[in-house]
Amino acid sequence: VSAPSGHRSIITLLTDFGPDSPYVASLKGVILSLQPEAVLVDLSHSIRPQEVRQAAWVLAEAAPCFPPDTIHVAVVDPGVGTCRAIVYAAMAGQHFIAPDNGLLSLLADRHRPTRLVRLDNPAFWRAEVSRTFHGRDIMAPVAAHLSRGVGADRLGSPQESLVRIDWPQPRQEAHRTVGQVVWIDSFGNLITNLGREFI
Amino acid sequence: VSAPSGHRSIITLLTDFGPDSPYVASLKGVILSLQPEAVLVDLSHSIRPQEVRQAAWVLAEAAPCFPPDTIHVAVVDPGVGTCRAIVYAAMAGQHFIAPDNGLLSLLADRHRPTRLVRLDNPAFWRAEVSRTFHGRDIMAPVAAHLSRGVGADRLGSPQESLVRIDWPQPRQEAHRTVGQVVWIDSFGNLITNLGREFI
Amino acid sequence: VSAPSGHRSIITLLTDFGPDSPYVASLKGVILSLQPEAVLVDLSHSIRPQEVRQAAWVLAEAAPCFPPDTIHVAVVDPGVGTCRAIVYAAMAGQHFIAPDNGLLSLLADRHRPTRLVRLDNPAFWRAEVSRTFHGRDIMAPVAAHLSRGVGADRLGSPQESLVRIDWPQPRQEAHRTVGQVVWIDSFGNLITNLGREFI
Repeated sequence: VSAPSGHRSIITLLTDFGPDSPYVASLKGVILSLQPEAVLVDLSHSIRPQEVRQAAWVLAEAAPCFPPDTIHVAVVDPGVGTCRAIVYAAMAGQHFIAPDNGLLSLLADRHRPTRLVRLDNPAFWRAEVSRTFHGRDIMAPVAAHLSRGVGADRLGSPQESLVRIDWPQPRQEAHRTVGQVVWIDSFGNLITNLGREFI
Repeated sequence: VSAPSGHRSIITLLTDFGPDSPYVASLKGVILSLQPEAVLVDLSHSIRPQEVRQAAWVLAEAAPCFPPDTIHVAVVDPGVGTCRAIVYAAMAGQHFIAPDNGLLSLLADRHRPTRLVRLDNPAFWRAEVSRTFHGRDIMAPVAAHLSRGVGADRLGSPQESLVRIDWPQPRQEAHRTVGQVVWIDSFGNLITNLGREFI
Repeated sequence: VSAPSGHRSIITLLTDFGPDSPYVASLKGVILSLQPEAVLVDLSHSIRPQEVRQAAWVLAEAAPCFPPDTIHVAVVDPGVGTCRAIVYAAMAGQHFIAPDNGLLSLLADRHRPTRLVRLDNPAFWRAEVSRTFHGRDIMAPVAAHLSRGVGADRLGSPQESLVRIDWPQPRQEAHRTVGQVVWIDSFGNLITNLGREFI
Protein backbone atom coordinates (compact mmCIF):
# COMPACT_ATOMS: atom_id res chain seq x y z
CA VAL A 1 0.00 0.00 0.00
CA SER A 2 1.53 3.28 -1.04
CA ALA A 3 1.06 6.49 0.88
CA PRO A 4 -2.06 8.50 0.07
CA SER A 5 -1.50 10.72 -2.93
CA GLY A 6 -4.78 12.64 -3.29
CA HIS A 7 -4.85 16.38 -2.65
CA ARG A 8 -7.45 15.74 0.04
CA SER A 9 -6.79 13.14 2.67
CA ILE A 10 -9.49 11.61 4.78
CA ILE A 11 -8.52 10.91 8.38
CA THR A 12 -11.16 9.34 10.62
CA LEU A 13 -11.11 9.44 14.40
CA LEU A 14 -12.55 6.85 16.79
CA THR A 15 -12.14 7.37 20.53
CA ASP A 16 -13.68 6.83 23.94
CA PHE A 17 -13.10 10.48 24.94
CA GLY A 18 -16.78 11.41 25.17
CA PRO A 19 -18.50 14.50 23.81
CA ASP A 20 -17.48 17.02 26.45
CA SER A 21 -13.70 16.76 26.70
CA PRO A 22 -11.01 18.88 25.04
CA TYR A 23 -9.25 15.69 24.01
CA VAL A 24 -10.96 15.10 20.67
CA ALA A 25 -10.39 18.69 19.61
CA SER A 26 -6.74 18.37 20.63
CA LEU A 27 -6.28 15.48 18.22
CA LYS A 28 -7.87 17.51 15.45
CA GLY A 29 -5.74 20.57 16.16
CA VAL A 30 -2.54 18.53 16.07
CA ILE A 31 -3.50 16.90 12.78
CA LEU A 32 -4.54 20.17 11.13
CA SER A 33 -1.35 21.87 12.32
CA LEU A 34 0.71 19.33 10.39
CA GLN A 35 -1.67 18.63 7.53
CA PRO A 36 -4.03 21.53 6.79
CA GLU A 37 -5.59 19.61 3.91
CA ALA A 38 -6.84 16.79 6.11
CA VAL A 39 -10.54 15.99 5.87
CA LEU A 40 -11.44 14.91 9.38
CA VAL A 41 -14.35 12.53 9.92
CA ASP A 42 -15.61 11.42 13.33
CA LEU A 43 -16.35 7.70 13.49
CA SER A 44 -17.50 7.98 17.09
CA HIS A 45 -16.23 9.46 20.32
CA SER A 46 -18.82 7.71 22.47
CA ILE A 47 -17.20 4.31 22.76
CA ARG A 48 -17.62 3.21 26.38
CA PRO A 49 -14.43 4.09 28.21
CA GLN A 50 -11.67 1.60 27.46
CA GLU A 51 -14.01 -0.84 25.73
CA VAL A 52 -11.59 -2.09 23.10
CA ARG A 53 -14.06 -4.69 21.92
CA GLN A 54 -16.79 -2.15 21.12
CA ALA A 55 -14.28 0.04 19.30
CA ALA A 56 -13.06 -2.91 17.27
CA TRP A 57 -16.60 -3.69 16.20
CA VAL A 58 -17.51 -0.10 15.24
CA LEU A 59 -14.30 0.24 13.26
CA ALA A 60 -14.82 -3.06 11.46
CA GLU A 61 -18.37 -2.06 10.51
CA ALA A 62 -17.66 1.50 9.37
CA ALA A 63 -14.20 1.40 7.78
CA PRO A 64 -15.16 -0.67 4.71
CA CYS A 65 -17.54 2.12 3.62
CA PHE A 66 -14.64 4.56 3.21
CA PRO A 67 -12.59 5.10 0.06
CA PRO A 68 -9.15 3.60 -0.55
CA ASP A 69 -6.25 5.27 1.26
CA THR A 70 -8.44 6.57 4.08
CA ILE A 71 -6.44 6.81 7.30
CA HIS A 72 -8.25 5.60 10.41
CA VAL A 73 -6.97 6.61 13.85
CA ALA A 74 -8.50 4.66 16.73
CA VAL A 75 -7.63 5.69 20.27
CA VAL A 76 -9.15 3.36 22.83
CA ASP A 77 -6.11 2.72 24.86
CA PRO A 78 -6.41 1.35 28.40
CA GLY A 79 -2.72 0.42 28.29
CA VAL A 80 -1.43 3.93 27.60
CA GLY A 81 1.77 4.42 29.53
CA THR A 82 2.56 0.69 29.60
CA CYS A 83 4.77 -1.14 27.13
CA ARG A 84 1.93 -1.92 24.72
CA ALA A 85 2.92 -0.98 21.16
CA ILE A 86 1.25 1.49 18.86
CA VAL A 87 0.85 -0.02 15.45
CA TYR A 88 0.27 0.88 11.82
CA ALA A 89 -1.61 -1.67 9.71
CA ALA A 90 -2.43 -1.63 6.03
CA MET A 91 -5.65 -3.55 5.45
CA ALA A 92 -8.08 -3.61 2.53
CA GLY A 93 -6.34 -0.70 0.84
CA GLN A 94 -6.74 1.55 3.88
CA HIS A 95 -4.46 2.69 6.70
CA PHE A 96 -5.01 2.06 10.39
CA ILE A 97 -3.24 3.51 13.43
CA ALA A 98 -4.13 2.19 16.88
CA PRO A 99 -2.70 0.79 20.06
CA ASP A 100 -1.84 -2.87 19.52
CA ASN A 101 -4.37 -4.11 22.04
CA GLY A 102 -6.77 -6.04 19.84
CA LEU A 103 -8.59 -3.01 18.49
CA LEU A 104 -7.60 -3.93 14.94
CA SER A 105 -8.01 -7.67 15.32
CA LEU A 106 -11.61 -7.99 14.17
CA LEU A 107 -10.77 -6.14 10.97
CA ALA A 108 -7.62 -8.22 10.59
CA ASP A 109 -9.73 -11.39 10.81
CA ARG A 110 -11.66 -10.15 7.78
CA HIS A 111 -8.90 -8.42 5.81
CA ARG A 112 -5.38 -9.80 6.15
CA PRO A 113 -2.92 -7.00 6.91
CA THR A 114 -0.49 -6.38 4.07
CA ARG A 115 1.90 -4.42 6.26
CA LEU A 116 2.41 -3.96 9.98
CA VAL A 117 4.73 -1.35 11.49
CA ARG A 118 5.45 -0.75 15.14
CA LEU A 119 5.29 3.04 15.47
CA ASP A 120 8.49 3.52 17.44
CA ASN A 121 10.21 6.28 15.48
CA PRO A 122 9.89 9.45 17.60
CA ALA A 123 10.95 11.61 14.66
CA PHE A 124 7.28 11.73 13.68
CA TRP A 125 5.88 12.35 17.17
CA ARG A 126 5.25 15.60 18.93
CA ALA A 127 8.39 17.04 20.53
CA GLU A 128 7.05 16.42 24.01
CA VAL A 129 5.17 13.18 24.67
CA SER A 130 2.96 12.89 27.76
CA ARG A 131 2.58 9.57 29.52
CA THR A 132 -1.19 9.55 29.25
CA PHE A 133 -2.14 11.06 25.90
CA HIS A 134 -0.43 9.14 23.11
CA GLY A 135 -3.43 9.83 20.87
CA ARG A 136 -2.46 13.49 20.71
CA ASP A 137 1.29 13.11 20.97
CA ILE A 138 2.00 10.03 18.82
CA MET A 139 -1.01 8.76 16.85
CA ALA A 140 -2.33 12.12 15.59
CA PRO A 141 1.03 13.44 14.31
CA VAL A 142 1.92 10.08 12.75
CA ALA A 143 -1.43 10.09 10.91
CA ALA A 144 -0.75 13.60 9.65
CA HIS A 145 2.71 12.67 8.38
CA LEU A 146 1.31 9.56 6.71
CA SER A 147 -1.32 11.70 5.04
CA ARG A 148 1.42 14.01 3.76
CA GLY A 149 3.12 11.13 2.02
CA VAL A 150 5.62 9.78 4.55
CA GLY A 151 6.00 6.05 3.85
CA ALA A 152 4.88 3.65 6.55
CA ASP A 153 8.35 2.06 6.61
CA ARG A 154 9.82 5.29 7.95
CA LEU A 155 7.39 5.45 10.87
CA GLY A 156 8.92 2.57 12.80
CA SER A 157 10.07 -1.02 12.60
CA PRO A 158 8.38 -3.98 10.93
CA GLN A 159 6.09 -6.08 13.07
CA GLU A 160 4.99 -9.65 12.46
CA SER A 161 1.53 -9.90 13.95
CA LEU A 162 -1.21 -8.07 15.83
CA VAL A 163 -2.43 -8.69 19.33
CA ARG A 164 -5.74 -10.54 19.04
CA ILE A 165 -8.76 -10.49 21.25
CA ASP A 166 -10.92 -13.53 21.35
CA TRP A 167 -14.29 -12.88 19.83
CA PRO A 168 -17.13 -15.06 20.96
CA GLN A 169 -17.88 -17.48 18.14
CA PRO A 170 -21.35 -18.80 17.38
CA ARG A 171 -21.68 -22.43 18.48
CA GLN A 172 -23.65 -25.06 16.64
CA GLU A 173 -25.31 -27.49 19.03
CA ALA A 174 -27.49 -30.48 18.32
CA HIS A 175 -30.78 -28.68 17.94
CA ARG A 176 -29.83 -25.03 18.17
CA THR A 177 -27.30 -22.34 17.38
CA VAL A 178 -25.90 -20.26 20.23
CA GLY A 179 -24.69 -16.75 19.43
CA GLN A 180 -23.94 -13.58 21.31
CA VAL A 181 -25.31 -10.06 21.18
CA VAL A 182 -22.41 -7.76 20.33
CA TRP A 183 -24.25 -4.44 20.38
CA ILE A 184 -27.67 -2.91 20.99
CA ASP A 185 -28.30 0.06 18.74
CA SER A 186 -30.37 3.19 19.45
CA PHE A 187 -33.45 1.50 18.00
CA GLY A 188 -33.18 -1.47 20.33
CA ASN A 189 -31.97 -3.77 17.56
CA LEU A 190 -29.78 -6.54 18.94
CA ILE A 191 -26.73 -7.00 16.73
CA THR A 192 -25.41 -10.55 17.06
CA ASN A 193 -22.40 -12.44 15.84
CA LEU A 194 -24.63 -14.74 13.80
CA GLY A 195 -23.87 -14.14 10.12
CA ARG A 196 -26.14 -14.88 7.20
CA GLU A 197 -24.93 -18.45 7.01
CA PHE A 198 -26.87 -19.21 10.18
CA ILE A 199 -30.23 -18.00 8.93
CA VAL B 1 -33.31 24.08 -9.38
CA SER B 2 -30.19 23.02 -11.18
CA ALA B 3 -27.68 20.59 -9.79
CA PRO B 4 -25.01 22.06 -7.54
CA SER B 5 -22.11 23.41 -9.55
CA GLY B 6 -19.64 24.65 -6.94
CA HIS B 7 -16.32 22.92 -6.55
CA ARG B 8 -17.25 22.26 -2.93
CA SER B 9 -20.59 20.72 -2.14
CA ILE B 10 -22.17 20.88 1.26
CA ILE B 11 -24.08 17.77 2.29
CA THR B 12 -25.75 17.80 5.70
CA LEU B 13 -26.79 14.71 7.63
CA LEU B 14 -29.68 14.40 10.09
CA THR B 15 -30.37 11.04 11.69
CA ASP B 16 -31.60 9.24 14.79
CA PHE B 17 -28.58 6.90 14.81
CA GLY B 18 -27.12 8.20 18.09
CA PRO B 19 -23.51 9.06 18.86
CA ASP B 20 -22.10 5.58 19.37
CA SER B 21 -23.10 3.63 16.29
CA PRO B 22 -21.08 2.89 13.15
CA TYR B 23 -24.10 3.95 11.08
CA VAL B 24 -23.36 7.68 10.79
CA ALA B 25 -19.77 7.00 9.76
CA SER B 26 -21.02 4.52 7.19
CA LEU B 27 -23.11 7.23 5.52
CA LYS B 28 -20.10 9.52 5.44
CA GLY B 29 -17.82 6.86 4.02
CA VAL B 30 -20.27 6.04 1.22
CA ILE B 31 -20.65 9.72 0.32
CA LEU B 32 -16.91 10.42 0.36
CA SER B 33 -16.22 7.32 -1.72
CA LEU B 34 -18.41 8.71 -4.51
CA GLN B 35 -17.79 12.42 -3.97
CA PRO B 36 -14.42 13.16 -2.32
CA GLU B 37 -15.11 16.90 -2.52
CA ALA B 38 -18.18 16.73 -0.30
CA VAL B 39 -18.20 19.02 2.72
CA LEU B 40 -20.10 17.01 5.32
CA VAL B 41 -21.97 18.83 8.06
CA ASP B 42 -23.80 17.10 10.92
CA LEU B 43 -27.22 18.60 11.61
CA SER B 44 -27.83 16.20 14.47
CA HIS B 45 -27.63 12.48 15.09
CA SER B 46 -29.44 12.63 18.41
CA ILE B 47 -33.01 12.78 17.16
CA ARG B 48 -35.02 10.48 19.40
CA PRO B 49 -35.30 7.12 17.63
CA GLN B 50 -37.92 7.23 14.87
CA GLU B 51 -39.28 10.63 15.96
CA VAL B 52 -40.09 11.98 12.52
CA ARG B 53 -41.75 15.05 14.00
CA GLN B 54 -38.65 16.14 15.92
CA ALA B 55 -36.48 15.61 12.85
CA ALA B 56 -38.88 17.66 10.73
CA TRP B 57 -38.65 20.52 13.20
CA VAL B 58 -34.85 20.48 13.49
CA LEU B 59 -34.51 20.38 9.71
CA ALA B 60 -36.99 23.22 9.21
CA GLU B 61 -35.12 25.37 11.75
CA ALA B 62 -31.58 24.71 10.56
CA ALA B 63 -31.81 24.31 6.78
CA PRO B 64 -32.67 27.96 5.98
CA CYS B 65 -29.30 29.02 7.46
CA PHE B 66 -27.41 27.08 4.79
CA PRO B 67 -26.35 28.41 1.40
CA PRO B 68 -28.19 27.74 -1.87
CA ASP B 69 -27.65 24.29 -3.38
CA THR B 70 -26.89 22.68 -0.05
CA ILE B 71 -27.97 19.03 -0.07
CA HIS B 72 -29.71 17.85 3.10
CA VAL B 73 -30.01 14.11 3.79
CA ALA B 74 -32.43 13.22 6.59
CA VAL B 75 -32.66 9.62 7.69
CA VAL B 76 -35.33 9.11 10.31
CA ASP B 77 -37.08 6.22 8.78
CA PRO B 78 -39.36 4.01 10.87
CA GLY B 79 -40.84 2.64 7.65
CA VAL B 80 -37.59 1.32 6.21
CA GLY B 81 -38.28 -1.96 4.50
CA THR B 82 -41.94 -1.11 3.84
CA CYS B 83 -43.31 0.43 0.67
CA ARG B 84 -42.83 4.02 1.81
CA ALA B 85 -41.06 6.05 -0.87
CA ILE B 86 -37.76 7.85 -0.64
CA VAL B 87 -38.09 11.30 -2.09
CA TYR B 88 -36.06 14.18 -3.46
CA ALA B 89 -37.51 17.67 -2.99
CA ALA B 90 -36.20 21.01 -4.20
CA MET B 91 -37.29 23.71 -1.76
CA ALA B 92 -36.06 27.26 -1.22
CA GLY B 93 -33.11 26.75 -3.56
CA GLN B 94 -31.84 23.74 -1.63
CA HIS B 95 -32.01 19.96 -2.10
CA PHE B 96 -33.59 17.49 0.29
CA ILE B 97 -33.44 13.69 0.38
CA ALA B 98 -35.54 11.82 2.93
CA PRO B 99 -38.07 9.05 3.37
CA ASP B 100 -41.49 10.33 2.33
CA ASN B 101 -42.96 10.00 5.80
CA GLY B 102 -43.69 13.60 6.70
CA LEU B 103 -40.12 14.51 7.55
CA LEU B 104 -40.12 17.18 4.85
CA SER B 105 -43.66 18.40 5.38
CA LEU B 106 -42.97 21.20 7.85
CA LEU B 107 -40.43 22.70 5.47
CA ALA B 108 -42.83 22.18 2.58
CA ASP B 109 -45.49 24.13 4.48
CA ARG B 110 -43.10 27.08 4.54
CA HIS B 111 -41.38 26.71 1.16
CA ARG B 112 -43.39 25.20 -1.66
CA PRO B 113 -41.43 22.40 -3.35
CA THR B 114 -40.45 23.26 -6.90
CA ARG B 115 -39.67 19.68 -7.78
CA LEU B 116 -40.43 16.27 -6.28
CA VAL B 117 -38.85 13.03 -7.45
CA ARG B 118 -39.48 9.54 -6.14
CA LEU B 119 -36.01 8.06 -5.83
CA ASP B 120 -36.71 4.76 -7.52
CA ASN B 121 -33.84 4.51 -10.01
CA PRO B 122 -31.46 1.87 -8.62
CA ALA B 123 -28.72 2.96 -11.04
CA PHE B 124 -27.67 5.50 -8.43
CA TRP B 125 -27.88 3.18 -5.41
CA ARG B 126 -25.24 0.94 -3.95
CA ALA B 127 -24.92 -2.36 -5.78
CA GLU B 128 -26.30 -4.28 -2.83
CA VAL B 129 -29.20 -2.77 -0.90
CA SER B 130 -29.98 -4.05 2.57
CA ARG B 131 -33.56 -4.14 3.82
CA THR B 132 -32.84 -2.07 6.91
CA PHE B 133 -30.26 0.56 5.98
CA HIS B 134 -31.54 2.62 3.06
CA GLY B 135 -29.68 5.65 4.44
CA ARG B 136 -26.38 4.04 3.56
CA ASP B 137 -27.48 2.12 0.49
CA ILE B 138 -29.87 4.56 -1.25
CA MET B 139 -29.93 8.04 0.28
CA ALA B 140 -26.18 8.54 0.76
CA PRO B 141 -25.16 7.48 -2.76
CA VAL B 142 -28.01 9.44 -4.34
CA ALA B 143 -26.86 12.56 -2.46
CA ALA B 144 -23.30 12.01 -3.68
CA HIS B 145 -24.42 11.65 -7.28
CA LEU B 146 -26.59 14.75 -6.99
CA SER B 147 -23.61 16.62 -5.60
CA ARG B 148 -21.56 15.52 -8.60
CA GLY B 149 -24.06 17.07 -10.95
CA VAL B 150 -26.51 14.30 -11.78
CA GLY B 151 -29.86 15.95 -12.49
CA ALA B 152 -32.72 15.17 -10.14
CA ASP B 153 -34.85 13.99 -13.08
CA ARG B 154 -32.46 11.07 -13.62
CA LEU B 155 -32.77 9.86 -10.03
CA GLY B 156 -36.31 8.59 -10.32
CA SER B 157 -39.82 9.40 -11.42
CA PRO B 158 -41.81 12.60 -10.87
CA GLN B 159 -44.00 12.73 -7.81
CA GLU B 160 -46.98 15.00 -7.20
CA SER B 161 -47.03 15.60 -3.47
CA LEU B 162 -45.40 14.78 -0.16
CA VAL B 163 -46.80 12.78 2.72
CA ARG B 164 -47.84 15.28 5.38
CA ILE B 165 -47.91 14.99 9.11
CA ASP B 166 -50.43 17.03 11.01
CA TRP B 167 -48.77 19.67 13.08
CA PRO B 168 -50.63 20.93 16.09
CA GLN B 169 -51.93 24.38 15.24
CA PRO B 170 -52.33 27.16 17.78
CA ARG B 171 -55.99 27.72 18.63
CA GLN B 172 -57.53 31.10 19.35
CA GLU B 173 -60.22 30.87 22.01
CA ALA B 174 -62.39 33.59 23.52
CA HIS B 175 -60.00 34.84 26.12
CA ARG B 176 -56.85 32.88 25.44
CA THR B 177 -54.56 31.32 22.85
CA VAL B 178 -53.73 27.64 23.14
CA GLY B 179 -50.42 26.45 21.71
CA GLN B 180 -48.14 23.48 22.07
CA VAL B 181 -44.58 23.01 23.19
CA VAL B 182 -42.68 21.48 20.28
CA TRP B 183 -39.25 21.20 21.90
CA ILE B 184 -37.39 21.84 25.15
CA ASP B 185 -33.82 22.90 24.52
CA SER B 186 -30.73 22.29 26.66
CA PHE B 187 -31.36 25.55 28.52
CA GLY B 188 -34.87 24.57 29.52
CA ASN B 189 -36.43 26.98 27.01
CA LEU B 190 -39.83 25.77 25.85
CA ILE B 191 -40.13 26.21 22.10
CA THR B 192 -43.79 26.53 21.12
CA ASN B 193 -45.73 26.69 17.90
CA LEU B 194 -46.87 30.23 18.72
CA GLY B 195 -45.33 32.58 16.17
CA ARG B 196 -44.75 36.28 16.58
CA GLU B 197 -48.26 37.09 15.46
CA PHE B 198 -49.58 35.76 18.77
CA ILE B 199 -47.45 37.98 20.97
CA VAL C 1 -2.13 39.58 14.27
CA SER C 2 -3.10 39.82 10.65
CA ALA C 3 -6.24 38.30 9.21
CA PRO C 4 -5.98 34.68 8.11
CA SER C 5 -4.57 34.41 4.62
CA GLY C 6 -4.65 30.69 3.85
CA HIS C 7 -7.01 29.36 1.22
CA ARG C 8 -8.56 27.17 3.90
CA SER C 9 -9.61 28.71 7.15
CA ILE C 10 -10.20 26.72 10.28
CA ILE C 11 -13.09 27.89 12.43
CA THR C 12 -13.76 25.97 15.63
CA LEU C 13 -17.05 26.00 17.51
CA LEU C 14 -17.56 25.55 21.25
CA THR C 15 -21.09 25.77 22.66
CA ASP C 16 -23.48 24.52 25.31
CA PHE C 17 -26.21 23.82 22.75
CA GLY C 18 -26.22 20.05 23.22
CA PRO C 19 -26.27 17.36 20.54
CA ASP C 20 -29.93 17.47 19.58
CA SER C 21 -30.69 21.11 18.81
CA PRO C 22 -30.79 22.89 15.47
CA TYR C 23 -28.64 25.64 16.95
CA VAL C 24 -25.19 24.22 16.19
CA ALA C 25 -26.16 23.52 12.60
CA SER C 26 -27.51 27.05 12.30
CA LEU C 27 -24.11 28.48 13.23
CA LYS C 28 -22.48 26.27 10.62
CA GLY C 29 -24.94 27.22 7.92
CA VAL C 30 -24.45 30.92 8.55
CA ILE C 31 -20.67 30.57 8.43
CA LEU C 32 -20.67 28.45 5.27
CA SER C 33 -23.08 30.86 3.58
CA LEU C 34 -20.57 33.68 4.00
CA GLN C 35 -17.35 31.66 3.78
CA PRO C 36 -17.74 28.45 1.77
CA GLU C 37 -14.06 27.64 2.27
CA ALA C 38 -14.34 27.44 6.04
CA VAL C 39 -13.09 24.24 7.63
CA LEU C 40 -15.40 23.79 10.61
CA VAL C 41 -14.18 21.87 13.65
CA ASP C 42 -16.32 21.09 16.69
CA LEU C 43 -14.51 21.69 19.98
CA SER C 44 -17.51 20.52 21.97
CA HIS C 45 -21.21 21.21 22.10
CA SER C 46 -21.74 19.40 25.38
CA ILE C 47 -20.60 22.10 27.78
CA ARG C 48 -23.07 22.08 30.65
CA PRO C 49 -25.66 24.81 29.95
CA GLN C 50 -24.26 28.24 30.74
CA GLU C 51 -21.16 26.87 32.48
CA VAL C 52 -18.73 29.56 31.41
CA ARG C 53 -16.00 28.12 33.60
CA GLN C 54 -16.10 24.69 31.96
CA ALA C 55 -16.06 26.28 28.52
CA ALA C 56 -13.07 28.44 29.47
CA TRP C 57 -11.18 25.36 30.58
CA VAL C 58 -11.96 23.28 27.48
CA LEU C 59 -11.00 26.18 25.22
CA ALA C 60 -7.75 26.80 27.08
CA GLU C 61 -6.81 23.13 26.84
CA ALA C 62 -7.71 22.57 23.19
CA ALA C 63 -6.91 25.84 21.41
CA PRO C 64 -3.11 25.64 21.75
CA CYS C 65 -3.13 22.44 19.66
CA PHE C 66 -4.49 24.33 16.63
CA PRO C 67 -2.42 26.04 13.95
CA PRO C 68 -1.76 29.80 13.82
CA ASP C 69 -4.64 31.93 12.56
CA THR C 70 -7.29 29.45 13.63
CA ILE C 71 -10.51 31.25 14.53
CA HIS C 72 -12.27 29.98 17.65
CA VAL C 73 -15.93 30.85 18.25
CA ALA C 74 -17.15 30.11 21.77
CA VAL C 75 -20.83 30.59 22.52
CA VAL C 76 -21.60 29.98 26.17
CA ASP C 77 -23.56 33.06 26.86
CA PRO C 78 -25.84 33.26 29.88
CA GLY C 79 -25.92 37.05 29.45
CA VAL C 80 -27.31 37.04 25.93
CA GLY C 81 -29.76 39.89 25.59
CA THR C 82 -28.12 41.92 28.38
CA CYS C 83 -25.49 44.61 27.92
CA ARG C 84 -22.54 42.21 28.11
CA ALA C 85 -20.17 42.79 25.22
CA ILE C 86 -19.12 40.38 22.53
CA VAL C 87 -15.39 40.51 22.07
CA TYR C 88 -12.64 39.62 19.65
CA ALA C 89 -9.26 38.73 21.13
CA ALA C 90 -5.99 37.92 19.43
CA MET C 91 -3.98 35.57 21.63
CA ALA C 92 -1.03 33.30 20.88
CA GLY C 93 -1.33 33.91 17.15
CA GLN C 94 -4.96 32.77 17.04
CA HIS C 95 -8.32 34.53 16.92
CA PHE C 96 -11.09 34.24 19.51
CA ILE C 97 -14.69 35.43 19.40
CA ALA C 98 -16.84 35.07 22.52
CA PRO C 99 -19.12 36.90 24.89
CA ASP C 100 -17.01 38.98 27.27
CA ASN C 101 -18.09 37.02 30.33
CA GLY C 102 -14.85 35.43 31.45
CA LEU C 103 -14.88 32.67 28.85
CA LEU C 104 -11.56 33.92 27.45
CA SER C 105 -9.97 34.80 30.75
CA LEU C 106 -8.20 31.52 31.48
CA LEU C 107 -6.53 31.67 28.08
CA ALA C 108 -5.73 35.33 28.62
CA ASP C 109 -4.00 34.44 31.89
CA ARG C 110 -1.67 32.21 29.89
CA HIS C 111 -1.33 34.20 26.67
CA ARG C 112 -1.55 37.97 26.91
CA PRO C 113 -4.02 39.31 24.33
CA THR C 114 -2.31 41.36 21.64
CA ARG C 115 -5.56 42.95 20.50
CA LEU C 116 -9.07 43.29 21.91
CA VAL C 117 -12.04 44.57 19.93
CA ARG C 118 -15.58 45.05 21.14
CA LEU C 119 -17.69 43.60 18.33
CA ASP C 120 -20.17 46.45 18.02
CA ASN C 121 -20.16 47.10 14.29
CA PRO C 122 -23.46 45.75 12.94
CA ALA C 123 -22.21 45.97 9.37
CA PHE C 124 -20.79 42.48 9.84
CA TRP C 125 -23.82 40.98 11.59
CA ARG C 126 -26.81 39.26 10.08
CA ALA C 127 -29.41 41.71 8.83
CA GLU C 128 -31.87 40.71 11.53
CA VAL C 129 -30.50 40.05 15.02
CA SER C 130 -32.60 38.11 17.52
CA ARG C 131 -32.40 38.89 21.21
CA THR C 132 -31.53 35.34 22.20
CA PHE C 133 -29.23 33.92 19.54
CA HIS C 134 -26.21 36.17 19.12
CA GLY C 135 -24.11 33.11 18.28
CA ARG C 136 -25.94 32.76 14.99
CA ASP C 137 -26.63 36.41 14.32
CA ILE C 138 -23.41 38.12 15.45
CA MET C 139 -20.59 35.73 16.32
CA ALA C 140 -20.92 33.34 13.38
CA PRO C 141 -21.06 36.03 10.67
CA VAL C 142 -18.24 38.01 12.28
CA ALA C 143 -16.08 34.86 12.30
CA ALA C 144 -16.85 34.28 8.62
CA HIS C 145 -15.92 37.84 7.69
CA LEU C 146 -12.72 37.60 9.73
CA SER C 147 -11.90 34.38 7.92
CA ARG C 148 -12.41 36.16 4.59
CA GLY C 149 -9.79 38.72 5.52
CA VAL C 150 -11.73 41.56 7.15
CA GLY C 151 -9.37 43.18 9.65
CA ALA C 152 -10.30 42.98 13.32
CA ASP C 153 -10.17 46.78 13.59
CA ARG C 154 -13.17 47.04 11.26
CA LEU C 155 -15.32 44.74 13.38
CA GLY C 156 -15.80 47.18 16.25
CA SER C 157 -14.09 49.50 18.67
CA PRO C 158 -10.89 48.92 20.67
CA GLN C 159 -11.31 47.50 24.14
CA GLU C 160 -8.83 47.69 27.01
CA SER C 161 -9.37 44.52 29.01
CA LEU C 162 -11.39 41.34 29.33
CA VAL C 163 -13.88 40.41 32.01
CA ARG C 164 -12.15 37.94 34.30
CA ILE C 165 -13.53 35.09 36.31
CA ASP C 166 -11.74 34.10 39.45
CA TRP C 167 -10.17 30.72 39.14
CA PRO C 168 -9.57 28.78 42.31
CA GLN C 169 -5.84 28.91 42.98
CA PRO C 170 -3.91 26.11 44.66
CA ARG C 171 -3.00 27.03 48.21
CA GLN C 172 0.22 26.06 49.92
CA GLU C 173 -0.31 25.36 53.61
CA ALA C 174 2.17 24.30 56.26
CA HIS C 175 2.15 20.59 55.58
CA ARG C 176 -0.01 20.26 52.53
CA THR C 177 -1.13 21.72 49.22
CA VAL C 178 -4.82 22.35 48.64
CA GLY C 179 -6.10 22.27 45.07
CA GLN C 180 -9.40 21.89 43.31
CA VAL C 181 -10.79 19.41 40.82
CA VAL C 182 -11.71 21.32 37.67
CA TRP C 183 -13.07 18.46 35.61
CA ILE C 184 -13.74 14.72 35.71
CA ASP C 185 -13.17 13.11 32.35
CA SER C 186 -14.93 10.11 30.83
CA PHE C 187 -12.32 7.79 32.34
CA GLY C 188 -12.91 9.06 35.84
CA ASN C 189 -9.64 10.98 35.89
CA LEU C 190 -9.83 13.99 38.16
CA ILE C 191 -8.25 17.00 36.48
CA THR C 192 -7.03 19.46 39.10
CA ASN C 193 -5.57 22.94 39.08
CA LEU C 194 -2.30 21.61 40.50
CA GLY C 195 0.39 22.08 37.86
CA ARG C 196 3.66 20.21 37.60
CA GLU C 197 5.36 22.57 39.99
CA PHE C 198 3.37 21.01 42.84
CA ILE C 199 4.40 17.45 42.18
